[in-house]
Amino acid sequence: MTMTTIATDQPVVTLINTFTVAPERQGELIRLLVEATEQVMRHRPGFVSANIHRGLEGTRVANYAQWRSREDFEAMLRDPAAQMHMREAAAIASFDPLLYEVADTFHAE
Amino acid sequence: MTMTTIATDQPVVTLINTFTVAPERQGELIRLLVEATEQVMRHRPGFVSANIHRGLEGTRVANYAQWRSREDFEAMLRDPAAQMHMREAAAIASFDPLLYEVADTFHAE
Repeated sequence: MTMTTIATDQPVVTLINTFTVAPERQGELIRLLVEATEQVMRHRPGFVSANIHRGLEGTRVANYAQWRSREDFEAMLRDPAAQMHMREAAAIASFDPLLYEVADTFHAE
Repeated sequence: MTMTTIATDQPVVTLINTFTVAPERQGELIRLLVEATEQVMRHRPGFVSANIHRGLEGTRVANYAQWRSREDFEAMLRDPAAQMHMREAAAIASFDPLLYEVADTFHAE
């Protein structure tokens, strides 16, 4: 798998985590999330994908991520190395991690 | 194109719109967003994709959508039919529509 795809029939749960950050620290937050994903999250069982997004107006960052199951995601949350990275993010940003399933999809004709 | 893909090299801007809704109206909000996308949004110039997500805990809905450009997205916001649907959503939910670009992507090994 080389690209994240969004579809209703995939065996994943979706995490959409939106971060609010001071504009002068947006780049630092993105680097921190990239590092946490490379070093820790992607090696945890059940990791499928993560996609870090830069808010165009400067104060937001979003992670659109997929995990095999809620249980795998929650096990990652209990991992001490993951918790260390989450504390680093919490020191410079507020965030709101929420789990979703894909309800419906639409594409240009 | 039959499936939304997320990658750093695509010529799109990404809209992530997260809605907060009373749990008993989550289904109604999803139906409203599906109808608005089918009837209006997907026919506007520059629409690429929309993906409606149901929050697993019941009070959230998210739309992960792609537009060809910020200008196309903003033109849609001025469309009277789109505004009618947005007022319907605003009557039952709060929401936070934000534009992003993809900064980095990761996949399972």
